[in-house]
Amino acid sequence: MQDSIQPIKWQQGRLLLLDQRVLPQYENYLEYAEPEAVAAAIRDMVVRGAPAIGIAAAYGVVLAAQQCYSRSPTNWKTDIQEDLQQLRDARPTAVNLCWAVDRMADVIESVTQNPLELLLSAAKQIHDEDVAANLKMGELGATLIKTPCDVITHCNAGALATGGYGTALGVIRSAFRQGLINRVYADETRPWLQGARLTAWEMVKENIPVSLMVDSAASRLMQQGKVGWIIVGSDRIVANGDVANKIGTYQLAISARYHGVKVMVVAPTSTIDMRIVSGDAIDIENRPAEEVTQVAGSRVAAFGVDVINPAFDVTPAELVDAIVTEKGIVMKPTAKKMADLMADMMKSDG
Amino acid sequence: MQDSIQPIKWQQGRLLLLDQRVLPQYENYLEYAEPEAVAAAIRDMVVRGAPAIGIAAAYGVVLAAQQCYSRSPTNWKTDIQEDLQQLRDARPTAVNLCWAVDRMADVIESVTQNPLELLLSAAKQIHDEDVAANLKMGELGATLIKTPCDVITHCNAGALATGGYGTALGVIRSAFRQGLINRVYADETRPWLQGARLTAWEMVKENIPVSLMVDSAASRLMQQGKVGWIIVGSDRIVANGDVANKIGTYQLAISARYHGVKVMVVAPTSTIDMRIVSGDAIDIENRPAEEVTQVAGSRVAAFGVDVINPAFDVTPAELVDAIVTEKGIVMKPTAKKMADLMADMMKSDG
Repeated sequence: MQDSIQPIKWQQGRLLLLDQRVLPQYENYLEYAEPEAVAAAIRDMVVRGAPAIGIAAAYGVVLAAQQCYSRSPTNWKTDIQEDLQQLRDARPTAVNLCWAVDRMADVIESVTQNPLELLLSAAKQIHDEDVAANLKMGELGATLIKTPCDVITHCNAGALATGGYGTALGVIRSAFRQGLINRVYADETRPWLQGARLTAWEMVKENIPVSLMVDSAASRLMQQGKVGWIIVGSDRIVANGDVANKIGTYQLAISARYHGVKVMVVAPTSTIDMRIVSGDAIDIENRPAEEVTQVAGSRVAAFGVDVINPAFDVTPAELVDAIVTEKGIVMKPTAKKMADLMADMMKSDG
Repeated sequence: MQDSIQPIKWQQGRLLLLDQRVLPQYENYLEYAEPEAVAAAIRDMVVRGAPAIGIAAAYGVVLAAQQCYSRSPTNWKTDIQEDLQQLRDARPTAVNLCWAVDRMADVIESVTQNPLELLLSAAKQIHDEDVAANLKMGELGATLIKTPCDVITHCNAGALATGGYGTALGVIRSAFRQGLINRVYADETRPWLQGARLTAWEMVKENIPVSLMVDSAASRLMQQGKVGWIIVGSDRIVANGDVANKIGTYQLAISARYHGVKVMVVAPTSTIDMRIVSGDAIDIENRPAEEVTQVAGSRVAAFGVDVINPAFDVTPAELVDAIVTEKGIVMKPTAKKMADLMADMMKSDG
């Protein structure tokens, strides 16, 4: 069932990342042997998508341990702390990044001898669990679509954004195979064009009917009445069910409510951050002005113009119809329902 | 009061158009001596913006008359009909184009000898009236802004889109000079990037504080509470007050309503088409896929992807707070109020 797109691989003690900056023109893997370079790759968006950057960071911790342990088998647990922090800080909004590094840090705490085998196995487990979670979410999310319809997705929450298969695109893959989706409309997703470059590429590769449009065209499409669901991923879901995701998700959700279209957010429980009470407190990354003023390396904007370039926005829980996780679906999310989901998870894991 | 940006000039029997495809990198005027070339310039967006294409077409009629009358002073009125139709058909959505050509056609009907002086004077009158209308709308629109605030504009409804001064940007110019606008946020306006290239350029040129953002960021900005008004132009306003404008306007209007932000549409009465009862019947232009799949001449989208590229959308009257014309303001437009505005205009003109 897992599809063949693999954004992250571990081979012979090295991390390989499919360079998402040059897709779909080039399918090029870059090789990493040092944790600083992995942090830079996350910052520069060689790898992007909340679950994928968590997995990449976990392998980055393995690389850090290789370095630190070989330099000093006695002090490596102290030495590695700086690397861990650098990985956590690579991007601020996706919580999966901290979640994965913290999980690896727990393993570091617990080991008593050569840590490499144990850490690599922990990173691989994070990777494998993510793929399994995606397959589960695909199955659960598809049950919400009762009548065959068109859907809109924003950004790329696909195989490329995860360990494989995808969150939002995982649901789309599963639902399409069940005949529940007629056509996927992909927002191009300015400024980074993840929709045009990555989502369209994934859908074309699997012969799922896909139409690309500018982000601004989504409301006109909903007005025409064939869209049943907006299906998106998330970078951080907080305790009251507010959802941080790619800039433009909030706008889509407002328009969906206006048109009676439903909104499905698909994300593993590693994306849920119960320490943050509501969306206002989420740290929203501002990215460089050049992402907006230049396109494909050419300056397009007038010189002298100021730029705001928030990478994410927060959709309030009240605009979300369903949050789909690998542990179950939360309909019309509230703080109470989110707490119940996480409590159930602790119980079933415990 | 008229600003120095002149998208359309008439010099020594030739039409000069500021090439808006290469702004802001190059300020380059192209010269036209033939009506076919003017129709092509409108289609290819050398000149764009509803009022501006109307004015360009009026001068195109003068060029057509120069040709047809010099070829045959007896048959020119028949010969010119094909040129008139070609100009009317250059783009489908903006009604100003037909309005201007029809007005020139009326002059053609009425002339009895060498038509050139009369037609040139009619074209210049259309041009001058447009600038005067913009100055008047600027003054009227500014009266609606009661408290200094930030505003969002979409596409370019500026000097470049008109005979000069602008419709939406005319109001912004006037209101800024009166201290009623703190900052203008320009949507970049995919796919053609009129906001990044043209609106930002106009605002920077006049030292009006302007921030550029991707179209998807508008809702997050409204969420932050400093935006008082969305101010946009229009390509066609119909009898019930529905407004066709650049794709994305509808999405902005939905979001504005959600946030309690007001929507002002600024357009001369030549943009009002009383023959169309409601927005559903407006012909919306679909533009080439390459506008979305390529950026700055480079292919960015995955190969094999289908594209939808509607150039405009229709905002229902119920989402519009005010339509500002040179003949007055219509608050909360309805069919009755639009009919009253047009009846008053007939009276005052008659």
